[in-house]
Amino acid sequence: MINTLTEKIKKLEAPIVVGLDPTMKFVPEYMKKQAFAEYGETLKGAAEAILAYNKGIVDAVCDLIPAVKPQIAMYEQFGIEGLIAFQKTVAYCKEKGLVVIGDIKRGDIGSTSEAYAVAHLGQVQVGNTMCRGFEEDFATVNPYLGSDGVQPFIKVCKEEKKGIFVLVKTSNPSSGEFQDRLVLPKDSRDAAKARPLYEIVGEKVAQWAAECMGGEYSYIGAVVGATYPEMGKILRQIMPKSYILVPGYGAQGGSGKDLKPFFNEDGLGAIVNSSRGIIAAYQQEKYAKYGEENYADAARAAVLDMKEDIRTGIS
Amino acid sequence: MINTLTEKIKKLEAPIVVGLDPTMKFVPEYMKKQAFAEYGETLKGAAEAILAYNKGIVDAVCDLIPAVKPQIAMYEQFGIEGLIAFQKTVAYCKEKGLVVIGDIKRGDIGSTSEAYAVAHLGQVQVGNTMCRGFEEDFATVNPYLGSDGVQPFIKVCKEEKKGIFVLVKTSNPSSGEFQDRLVLPKDSRDAAKARPLYEIVGEKVAQWAAECMGGEYSYIGAVVGATYPEMGKILRQIMPKSYILVPGYGAQGGSGKDLKPFFNEDGLGAIVNSSRGIIAAYQQEKYAKYGEENYADAARAAVLDMKEDIRTGIS
Repeated sequence: MINTLTEKIKKLEAPIVVGLDPTMKFVPEYMKKQAFAEYGETLKGAAEAILAYNKGIVDAVCDLIPAVKPQIAMYEQFGIEGLIAFQKTVAYCKEKGLVVIGDIKRGDIGSTSEAYAVAHLGQVQVGNTMCRGFEEDFATVNPYLGSDGVQPFIKVCKEEKKGIFVLVKTSNPSSGEFQDRLVLPKDSRDAAKARPLYEIVGEKVAQWAAECMGGEYSYIGAVVGATYPEMGKILRQIMPKSYILVPGYGAQGGSGKDLKPFFNEDGLGAIVNSSRGIIAAYQQEKYAKYGEENYADAARAAVLDMKEDIRTGIS
Repeated sequence: MINTLTEKIKKLEAPIVVGLDPTMKFVPEYMKKQAFAEYGETLKGAAEAILAYNKGIVDAVCDLIPAVKPQIAMYEQFGIEGLIAFQKTVAYCKEKGLVVIGDIKRGDIGSTSEAYAVAHLGQVQVGNTMCRGFEEDFATVNPYLGSDGVQPFIKVCKEEKKGIFVLVKTSNPSSGEFQDRLVLPKDSRDAAKARPLYEIVGEKVAQWAAECMGGEYSYIGAVVGATYPEMGKILRQIMPKSYILVPGYGAQGGSGKDLKPFFNEDGLGAIVNSSRGIIAAYQQEKYAKYGEENYADAARAAVLDMKEDIRTGIS
């Protein structure tokens, strides 16, 4: 799947992933009205509204981008109905030829991570039958529990030819609270050799990645926020064969010129996410002229602008 | 809810939580047959089997224990159907008067953590209506993203009088890979002052906890594995007002005598989880005499033994 992703990025000249992170505030009023008229102000009503909203966006941008990244929390908040909308969103995006990165940030002890890996990327045995729960192509994984918690994902990725992005340095303001703390080497008490935790995690990702090569790139990638380009530069060197999934572009503050450090010399190796900046573009002054009825056209215009901003920023 | 939990623990003299982490391997053959006959070897068939299995265990042990901890991954692996079984398990346990700790290990950037907090502990707004997705009393939270990722849970806990357990030192073998790494103080390069990451996270938990007192205890707790009693002792001191949720007892290797360091002088402050050791007790030699038909009686016997083992271990 990492090869498919790489080829798509090359072909479309767009290292872009659109974050399908719908909230009720983003969904145009007329779509909410329609869903509530049919299902009431219920979880089902909300789920139907976000699914319809997603489909509009996907239809409008699927020829421009290689991948989407639905954030499962935004669906999970609407309970079972929300998760059905998540599942349908995944299926719809795959129908449209998009690579789907499930932003699930799961991670647990070994046997439990195995269940998560199976849930999102693999197959679960029921009697003598193999079944599939959710069916993303990639998933994001939290490394706090160590190798135990990541290896089951790697195992399923090998079997299924899928991939993961491990959280290394996240885009949020307080990511440094633990991730930036300076860590001593295992075999030394020399404070001059202390390095931030995210580098230690990055090195582990590089080890895992080296054992999981697709073609040019590994199917074990990393998440590094656009909001920290200096750190991105170092992490790019530490994990040369890993794709870096870069959140934090746009609404969170990152811009095209911040992105160069995340890419390799070949112009590959990173894929930049924008969520709100695309899917709620129509709520920004810049794209207000589209109006909420044409929210999907606004999203398309925002993708084209983002593509250009990145092209200029990294060239 | 932390007061309810504390009172229940005192009344039942059982600082015990039963982990409802069903896998198909644990479910008795006759229950699987029954579910598959009705629903086939499908996700629905699996979900119905684990729900029936859970109900048997809950019925058998609910008068002995204050709380259960369903591990959501074990349900998520069966997709939507599995998550329906999770939801029904939560509801059933609450009907039976049990406190429900959702072992969800979620954690993300602020706005996303808010969605998770709402999904599991709070209410989501749909139009002018407030709706609830899943409805646990407590949830486990991953701290890797820092305060941003935890504060939204704390906010919802305040509103809903619920609580969280933050992962500090997990029970798995590789938990030390990142959690044990020695971290320099923020304001010093003195290697002699370096301390393990789990202590740094523990201190943060203690800060959050101090601002969120229920009665004697805070509703911000921590997860510290039974497999690391020495670290438990230090973390107990660092977080005096936090309940420690202790996984890793039983099947993962922890025993009653390892548990003392996790408790305060008042005999409170910790709640010990056992999953497989209870719910699949009938598969152990010690409880084999019960047979799979009486798997729930075996679970009850295992709870009683665990209660005694802890009583002896911590007294």
